[in-house]
Amino acid sequence: MSESLTRRGLAELFGTFWLVFGGCGSAIFAAKQIASDTSAGMSFNVGIGYLGVALAFGLTVLTMVYAVGHISGGHFNPAVTLGAVAAGRLPARDLVPYWIAQVVGGLIAGLALWTIAKGRKGFEAEGNMAANGFGVHSPAGYSLAAVLIAEVLLTAFFLIVILGATDKRAPAGFAGVAIGLTLTLIHLISIPISNTSVNPARSTAVAFFNGSGAPGQLWLFWLAPLLGGLIGGIVYVLVFTDEKLKLDA
Amino acid sequence: MSESLTRRGLAELFGTFWLVFGGCGSAIFAAKQIASDTSAGMSFNVGIGYLGVALAFGLTVLTMVYAVGHISGGHFNPAVTLGAVAAGRLPARDLVPYWIAQVVGGLIAGLALWTIAKGRKGFEAEGNMAANGFGVHSPAGYSLAAVLIAEVLLTAFFLIVILGATDKRAPAGFAGVAIGLTLTLIHLISIPISNTSVNPARSTAVAFFNGSGAPGQLWLFWLAPLLGGLIGGIVYVLVFTDEKLKLDA
Amino acid sequence: MSESLTRRGLAELFGTFWLVFGGCGSAIFAAKQIASDTSAGMSFNVGIGYLGVALAFGLTVLTMVYAVGHISGGHFNPAVTLGAVAAGRLPARDLVPYWIAQVVGGLIAGLALWTIAKGRKGFEAEGNMAANGFGVHSPAGYSLAAVLIAEVLLTAFFLIVILGATDKRAPAGFAGVAIGLTLTLIHLISIPISNTSVNPARSTAVAFFNGSGAPGQLWLFWLAPLLGGLIGGIVYVLVFTDEKLKLDA
Amino acid sequence: MSESLTRRGLAELFGTFWLVFGGCGSAIFAAKQIASDTSAGMSFNVGIGYLGVALAFGLTVLTMVYAVGHISGGHFNPAVTLGAVAAGRLPARDLVPYWIAQVVGGLIAGLALWTIAKGRKGFEAEGNMAANGFGVHSPAGYSLAAVLIAEVLLTAFFLIVILGATDKRAPAGFAGVAIGLTLTLIHLISIPISNTSVNPARSTAVAFFNGSGAPGQLWLFWLAPLLGGLIGGIVYVLVFTDEKLKLDA
Repeated sequence: MSESLTRRGLAELFGTFWLVFGGCGSAIFAAKQIASDTSAGMSFNVGIGYLGVALAFGLTVLTMVYAVGHISGGHFNPAVTLGAVAAGRLPARDLVPYWIAQVVGGLIAGLALWTIAKGRKGFEAEGNMAANGFGVHSPAGYSLAAVLIAEVLLTAFFLIVILGATDKRAPAGFAGVAIGLTLTLIHLISIPISNTSVNPARSTAVAFFNGSGAPGQLWLFWLAPLLGGLIGGIVYVLVFTDEKLKLDA
Repeated sequence: MSESLTRRGLAELFGTFWLVFGGCGSAIFAAKQIASDTSAGMSFNVGIGYLGVALAFGLTVLTMVYAVGHISGGHFNPAVTLGAVAAGRLPARDLVPYWIAQVVGGLIAGLALWTIAKGRKGFEAEGNMAANGFGVHSPAGYSLAAVLIAEVLLTAFFLIVILGATDKRAPAGFAGVAIGLTLTLIHLISIPISNTSVNPARSTAVAFFNGSGAPGQLWLFWLAPLLGGLIGGIVYVLVFTDEKLKLDA
Repeated sequence: MSESLTRRGLAELFGTFWLVFGGCGSAIFAAKQIASDTSAGMSFNVGIGYLGVALAFGLTVLTMVYAVGHISGGHFNPAVTLGAVAAGRLPARDLVPYWIAQVVGGLIAGLALWTIAKGRKGFEAEGNMAANGFGVHSPAGYSLAAVLIAEVLLTAFFLIVILGATDKRAPAGFAGVAIGLTLTLIHLISIPISNTSVNPARSTAVAFFNGSGAPGQLWLFWLAPLLGGLIGGIVYVLVFTDEKLKLDA
Repeated sequence: MSESLTRRGLAELFGTFWLVFGGCGSAIFAAKQIASDTSAGMSFNVGIGYLGVALAFGLTVLTMVYAVGHISGGHFNPAVTLGAVAAGRLPARDLVPYWIAQVVGGLIAGLALWTIAKGRKGFEAEGNMAANGFGVHSPAGYSLAAVLIAEVLLTAFFLIVILGATDKRAPAGFAGVAIGLTLTLIHLISIPISNTSVNPARSTAVAFFNGSGAPGQLWLFWLAPLLGGLIGGIVYVLVFTDEKLKLDA
C-alpha cells in the first residue's frame, strides 16, 4: 500500500460510487421491464430480475477491484474495512477515512440515480430506490430477526472469502473474480430477505432518497454488516492462519 | 497440504456450510418471487429460477476454492473426497475426517436456513427446503433409474474436471473457476431431474428439515454420487495419466 | 502435444460427450419448466430458457478445456479441428481420428440423453432432442440462407477467437475462459435462428434421436460449420500472423 | 504495440464487427422469444431478455480482447480510443484510423444482421434493429437529459476500469475479464434508459438500418460517449497516476 491516503480514499470513493450506481441502479432501472414485439403482437418480460441485480452488484466489485484494487485494497464497504482492520490487513487509523470516502461516494451515487430516475415520466422515488428493509419493508416479508441473522452471517462469510482469496497462499490475481462473485452469490440468496445490504454505505446511499421507512431501519444495516465483518475478520485469523489477533492501531 | 488435519477439517466444514447455505438458500429464498411495480400497476416475475440457483451453487464452490482451497483442497463434498482418494490425491486415512466435517458443516447450514426461512410469515418447511428426490419427489417426475444414471454420470464428470483442472499440466490458478462453473453446469442440466445432488452432504443437510419423503430417498443421494465420484477418480487416472491406481491407504 | 494419439482421441471423445450431454441436456431437461409455490398458491416460470442453455454450452467447453485441453488441445468439434489444421496448429493426419472421436463421443451422449429423458413419463423424443434446423425446423422460422450465413459467420469468428486466445502473444491460461464464453455468446445470438450448431458432432449426436426432419437437414450443419471453421483458420493466419498458410499434411 | 497500423486497424474492424453482431444480434434475434412444449401443452418465455443481451455485449469484448487485444489494444469503440489517447496510452495520430476501422466494422455487422433478420418471415427492420434512443425512442421513456447524464457517466467509468485494469500495477491477464464484464454491467444498468450505447460505432452501425427516428438522434450517441471517454481518460490520469496529461500528438 504505497499510495497516499488521499489517493486511496478517492479510489474507495469512486469504487463505492460504482457499487451503488451499478447495483442499485440496475435494480431501479432494469429489474422490472416489459417490452413489446410489434411483429408478434406480444409483450415479453425482459427485465433482469433479481438474478440480473445480483450479477450487477458483483460486477461492480469485480471490475473495480481490477481497476483500483491495487491502490486502496478495493473495499468499497465499511464492513469490509472493519474486517480488514480486525484481521490486521489495514492500520486502524485508516478506518475512519475509508468509511468517510465510502459513505460520500455512495451518497453521490444515490443522488445521480435519483437525478436520472426523475428523467422518466411518472417515476416516484418513494419506496423505489432499492433501499434495504426488514419486516414490512423486506421484499418478501422477513422478520427483523431473520434479516439480522442473514446479514451478519453473509457479511462474515464475505470477509472470509475476501481474506482467504487475498491470502498470500491463494493463487495471485484471482481475488477480484472470487470477491466480486461472492457479492453476486450473496445477492442471489438474500434479495428477497432484506434487499441485501452487507454494506452500510450502500444502505445509507439510497435510504433517504427512498424514504418509505428506510431511514428508520438504517441502523440495522450498519449494525449487522459491521458485526458480521468483525466476526469474519476474527474467525479468519483464528481458524485459518497462524497469526494472532492484534486489534490495536 | 502442509496444514493440520484440524484446520483442513474446519476449511471443509466452513466450505460445505457455504455450499448448502448459498446453493439451497438461493433455491429456498429466491427462486420463485414476484414483485410489483407500483407506478406501472403490474407484477413481475423477478425470481432467480433454476438458472440463478445453478449459478449460486457454482459460486459457492468457486468462491470457497479461492478462499480456503489452499488449505484443504476445497472438496466440500464426500463424493469429491472419495474420488480424490481413489486418484491418489488425498491419503485414505483423511477420508472419514473430511466426510464428518462436510456433513456437520452441511447440517449447520440446514439449521441456519430453516431458522431464517421461519422468519417469513406462513413459511412451511415441509417440502420446501430444496431436498433431492426421484419419482414423485423429482421436480419434473423423473424415475429412480433416470435419476441414478444422471447422478452417477454427472458426479463422474465432476471428478474428471476437478482432477484435470488441478493436474500439474493444467494452467495454474484457474481450477477454482473451472470447478465452480462445472457445478453450475451440472445444475443447469439436472435440477428438474433430481433437484441435483452430486453431493451427499448437501442432500443430507436439508433432507430432515424438508421431510416430505426426502429422508427415505436419501440413500440414493449417497449411493449415486459416491459411485460416480469413485468412477470419475479411477477413469481419470487410467485414461488421462501415466500413473497406476493405488487404492490402499 | 506430447500425449499419444489414443489419449488425445479419448480426451476429444470425453469432451464432446460433455458438450452434447451438458449443452443439449440443459435444453432438453431444463429450458422450459414451471414450478408451483404451495404457500403462495402460484406457479412460476423457473426454466433456464435460451440464456441458461447458452451458458451451459459455453461451460461444457470452458470446463473441459481446463480438464483435458492440455492433452488434446480441447476442440470437441470437427469444425474447430479443421480450422486448427488450416492454421497449422494440428497436423492434417490427426484430422480424421479427431473427427471420429468427436462424433462417437457425441453419439454416446445422445444415447445417454435419450435414456434419461425416457425416464420422464410422457416424454416424446420426436422433435424434442435439441436438434438443429432451418426453415420449418428453425426455432423461429429462419430460412436456409439465413441459417447458412449465420452458421458460417459464427463458426469463423469462433475460430478467430480460439486461434487468437491460444496465440503465444495472448495472456497464458485465459484461453479456456475466452473460448468457452465465445460459445455462450454464439448461442445467445443464434438459438432462435438454427438452435445453434457451429459443431457438426453436436448436430449429428442428436439428429437421429430427434427425428422430425433433423436427419434430412444434417448436411447443412456439417457444411456450414466446416466452411466457417476453414475460413476462420485461414483468415486468422493471413490477417493476424506473419506466418504463411501451409495446408499440406 | 509492435504490430503495423494496418493489422491493428483490421483487429479493430473485426472486433467492432463482433461487438455489434453479437451484442445487437442477441437483442434482435433472441431477446423476446416464446417456445411451446408440446408434451406439456404450454408456451414458455425462453427469450434471453435484457440480462442475456447485457451478457452478450460484454462477452463480445471479453472474447475479442483475448483474441486480438494483444494486436490493437482491443478498443472496438471510438470513445475508448479517445480516452486511451487522452490518457497517453495511444498516439493521437492513430485516433482517426482506429475510428474509421471501428465504424466500418460496425456497419458491416449492421448489414449482416439486417441480411439474416430478413430471413425470418414477416420481419420488419423499422424500429427493430436495436438502435439507441432517448425520449420517445428510449425503451422506457427516459428524457434527453437523463440519457445524456447516464451515457457520459457510464462511459467515463468504463474508461476508468479499462485504464485501471490495464495499468501495470494491476494483475496481468485479467483485463479482458474486467473490461468485458464492465460492459455487461453497463448494459444491466442502462438498457431501459437508452438501449445502452457508450459506443458511437455501435450506435452508428444499426441506426440507419433501424430508421424510426434513430438517425436523427445519433448525434447524442457520439457526443455523450466521446465526452464520457475523454473525462474518464483525464480523471484516471489525474486521480490515479503520478503522470501528467499530455494531450498533444
